[in-house]
Amino acid sequence: MADPIDFYFDFASPYGYFASRRIEELAAAHGRTVTWRPILLGAIFKVTGMKPNLQQPLRGEYLVHDVGRIARLTNAPFTYPDSAPANSVAASRAFYWLTDEHPEQAKLLARTLYHAHWGEGRDIGPAETVVEIAGTLGHDRAAVAAALQDQTVKDRLRAENDAAVDRGVFGSPFVIVDDEPFWGWDRLDMVERWLSTGGW
Amino acid sequence: MADPIDFYFDFASPYGYFASRRIEELAAAHGRTVTWRPILLGAIFKVTGMKPNLQQPLRGEYLVHDVGRIARLTNAPFTYPDSAPANSVAASRAFYWLTDEHPEQAKLLARTLYHAHWGEGRDIGPAETVVEIAGTLGHDRAAVAAALQDQTVKDRLRAENDAAVDRGVFGSPFVIVDDEPFWGWDRLDMVERWLSTGGW
Repeated sequence: MADPIDFYFDFASPYGYFASRRIEELAAAHGRTVTWRPILLGAIFKVTGMKPNLQQPLRGEYLVHDVGRIARLTNAPFTYPDSAPANSVAASRAFYWLTDEHPEQAKLLARTLYHAHWGEGRDIGPAETVVEIAGTLGHDRAAVAAALQDQTVKDRLRAENDAAVDRGVFGSPFVIVDDEPFWGWDRLDMVERWLSTGGW
Repeated sequence: MADPIDFYFDFASPYGYFASRRIEELAAAHGRTVTWRPILLGAIFKVTGMKPNLQQPLRGEYLVHDVGRIARLTNAPFTYPDSAPANSVAASRAFYWLTDEHPEQAKLLARTLYHAHWGEGRDIGPAETVVEIAGTLGHDRAAVAAALQDQTVKDRLRAENDAAVDRGVFGSPFVIVDDEPFWGWDRLDMVERWLSTGGW
């Protein structure tokens, strides 16, 4: 079987949310699996010198309009969170705590966190919110709370972020198919074409 | 007939080049005409605080890879110019000098300049290059050279840039259909859908 597709995303990124709703089906249609890799764009922006889109004049307003439009187009549940851009550290740590042992549960947690934030407009920044959401999926709340402060988990997230930068990841979503990089929700059609043709 | 579509682009933008090769056909298929509006992203970046993509670590390298990939996908002539990012002032002025009296000639000049720059890799920054390219289309070289220094033409470009910012334009290409804004080459499929459905 061909290698998994790497799916990089920040929980704070609405475009990552939209991509998270499509990437598995897209990959499966071409016999691929997907490795989900949450990242912290804030840390990556320190390398690239970029600023969050929302904080850029004109572009920030466009983004708010654009993501609502994509939500309607793709029938995605969507509520623009008052808390955006959220702090995605706790959500990302919770994901990495789970993913090696229980990758499918980790993906379900990621989808549930994404839905809470971008679908329902909840602030997923506070650790207690992440703990509570993980609890609704049957995870032990005390274990999740401990994991969010576990040094191994913290180091894992940092290592994933550093590795992402090393691979050229600078935005969310960012998909790498074999060694081919694709940045943005708007590149998913191209990813699909790449998978179906083998590249060009 | 419905209002023309506004097509904003910077001659220095490869994504604008790719859009310029598709926008007329896309619009015509939906009974629309297109008003071409070259802009200077450098001036607009002073408002938004953005930096040219090429100057951003990781993103710059991605862009070079990505535009070559789009060229192959769309069968667009493409030679990455050593001179990128080019100074697009002279090309833009030449366009505005022509467009009110001879809009189709102005579009042909824009296409020819775009092809020279992104198709053949020529530096279209120098005024003499713009004059020479306009000359190959039958325009009087002395008249073009004079136009590039004409205060009315200079003012027109500045006014178009200011108006673009007022309309929220912050990148290239940027398409406005009625009052609906679309940023990026990657939004052209969405523009097409918007035109065919009347919006959502």
